[in-house]
Order: sequence, then C-alpha cells, then structure tokens
Amino acid sequence: MKVLVIGANGQVGHQLVEKLKDKGHQPVAMVRKEEQVEQFKEKGIDTVLGDLQKDFSHAFEGVDSVVFAAGSGGDTGADMTVLIDQEGAIESVDNAEKAGVKHFVMLSSMGADAPKEAEQMQHYLYAKHRADEHLKASGLDFTILRPGMLTNDSGTGKVRLFEGGTEIAEIPREDVANVLAHIVDTNKPQGKTYYLHEGDTPVEDTL
Amino acid sequence: MKVLVIGANGQVGHQLVEKLKDKGHQPVAMVRKEEQVEQFKEKGIDTVLGDLQKDFSHAFEGVDSVVFAAGSGGDTGADMTVLIDQEGAIESVDNAEKAGVKHFVMLSSMGADAPKEAEQMQHYLYAKHRADEHLKASGLDFTILRPGMLTNDSGTGKVRLFEGGTEIAEIPREDVANVLAHIVDTNKPQGKTYYLHEGDTPVEDTL
Repeated sequence: MKVLVIGANGQVGHQLVEKLKDKGHQPVAMVRKEEQVEQFKEKGIDTVLGDLQKDFSHAFEGVDSVVFAAGSGGDTGADMTVLIDQEGAIESVDNAEKAGVKHFVMLSSMGADAPKEAEQMQHYLYAKHRADEHLKASGLDFTILRPGMLTNDSGTGKVRLFEGGTEIAEIPREDVANVLAHIVDTNKPQGKTYYLHEGDTPVEDTL
Repeated sequence: MKVLVIGANGQVGHQLVEKLKDKGHQPVAMVRKEEQVEQFKEKGIDTVLGDLQKDFSHAFEGVDSVVFAAGSGGDTGADMTVLIDQEGAIESVDNAEKAGVKHFVMLSSMGADAPKEAEQMQHYLYAKHRADEHLKASGLDFTILRPGMLTNDSGTGKVRLFEGGTEIAEIPREDVANVLAHIVDTNKPQGKTYYLHEGDTPVEDTL
C-alpha cells in the first residue's frame, strides 16, 4: 500500500516510515523542507514536499492510507498548535476525503477526549480534540490512536491497546510507531478510538 | 426578551447590554468576576456569574436570545484564544442548543471565512472560524456578524451591512453594538453571515 506519513520528520513519524517499509509497504514521507529529503532518500524511502500551512493536497494523489503524525512541538507557541496540530490535521482529513483515501490514521493524544478536565495543556488537547472530531464527522474510514505519555525509551514491542479509560501511563515513541504501522498494515478501519500504554501484549496480537 | 450577553464586560458587550435595555429588553450580563457585577447593577442591568473555562450552562436558563461577544483580547497568549474565542464560543453554542435558545448571535470577525489567506492573526481567525462553523452545524437559529477593523470612535448609527465580500474597512465598536442590538431586537434569524463596515445606511434600516 502507498501510505502518506504526514509529519515524517518528527520522532514518531521517522520511525514509522521505516517500519512501514520493513513491512513491504510504500511509505511516502511528507516533509516541509528540501533539506529533509536526503535522509529518507538514503534509506530508499519516497518523499513529497508539503507544508501544512500552504496547499498540500498534491501529496494525497494515489494514496491508500494516511497517517497524521505531525505536531508543532513544544518549542513554538500556542498559535502554531492551532495552525499545525488542529488546522493541519483538519485540512489533512479534508484532503484525504477528496482524494478517496481508504484509511485515515490519526495520532491523537491522551486527554483529547476531555480537554476541559485537564490540568495543563488544555489548548493543545482542544486542538487534538477538534481534529479528532472533524475526522469522526468526515466520511472517511478511520482509526484514532491516543497514546499515553511519550518517552524516548526503546520500544519493547509489547503494549496495552484499549478503548476508553482515563488511566495515565507511559509508552515509548518507538512502540507508538510499531502500533501505527500495525494499524496501517492490518488495514481494517472500524472508526474506533484506541488508547495505548506500555503493556504485555505483542503489537502483532493487538486489534 | 431575555437576552444573555456573553462577554458583557468587554467593550462591545458593555455597550450592547445598555442598548438592549434601552430597547425594552431584559439583558443579562454574563461576567466572570463578582467585582464586575456592581457596574451593571447600578444601571439596573441583571447579571449572572459565568466562567467560560468552567461550567456556565446555568446562565442559559429561560433565555430567548444569546449574543456571544467574548474574546480573550490581545494581552493574553494564543492558548487563551483557543480556550475563550474558540472553545468558549463552541460550548456557548452547545449550551444554547440544550437550553432551547431561539436565536444565537455570534460576534465573529472579518477574515474568519478564510483564515489561511490571512497575513496575520491566523490562529485567531481559525478560532473564530471553528466557532462559526460549529454554530452553522448546530440546530440553532443564528446570525453571524463579522465586523471590519474595530475602532473606539463614537458610533454614527450609520453602517454598511452586507453578505460576502473581502474589502477591509473600519467600524466603531459602538456601531457594532448598535447592529447587534438591532439583530436581537428584529429577532428574525435567517442563518446568515453578515459583514459590517461603516457606511450610509441607518442601523434601523438594515436587515
């Protein structure tokens, strides 16, 4: 499958494109800058230049599945959270729908179900919430993934994937990438929202 | 009519409650702090305490019309733009729908139709855009007002109210309040989005 990964230059996105390639798919890394292309090319991974703040609809041509894994990160202001995490995601959904994409996978966040109850990062959680709601209201087949607190630990390949619940737990970014790759590979969108923590179940046995 | 004015302590909201009272309606000024109550009480205007960041659904009880005129202002960060201008407005719409409000009047902004084309304040315009879209998608009868550049000049009572268009022009805040009061008073929601500039037409002759 041709899989567009939006935010491929991010920590999760980077690992995701490699894992998708290992599974025999054709990932396309969407990156914003020309200088970000080479690192993917070296690994035989296709790229497409696309900027979430401009028109990036060209990136969706012929794409089977999309993973939105972009984020403005912690170094920019809340204005960028609106422009990237919220509006970039919403426009990605709209672009995917127009292009006839078959499965849209949204990398969301724990807490995005109830931002008002959060004690911090409310504006970020609202941005993620609005993007998730927009996806749910679209005509797309989708999967939403809400991981716990992201760490840079090495992945274990074992996780806890569940629907609902409000507990807080950690999850290595690499295992988030493992699960995203598994969701794409399994390719059975059921319009579900999953939460993801570290756990005991091999990623391949989830879903 | 009983008219809930959300953001009554703001510059437009403050003038609006007085104009609504002058027209014989029963405005209810929703304010966040106890110390903001007295200034309205002195003028014989009802108040209700309500915080857009908490549960403020009690404020909608028995209300005929709602005007959302709140804004986080220019002195706070973009995170507050999300929490007040976007999410406060969205929750106001949801509260109004649950309470059976008959007319929801949204004070929006020029540029909220196409935030991506804006050269500045994109995050603010997206926040206003999302709120407007949420209102349009609701089951409420509504009117959206998108004034041009707000000034503190005295109102002239003469304006240009029109549908569509992208020109930029100024409009005194007092005339915004005049038009909002007229929209509420006329009470014929048609699900329209109006743009408002200074002009030659007496406010009473618009709509």
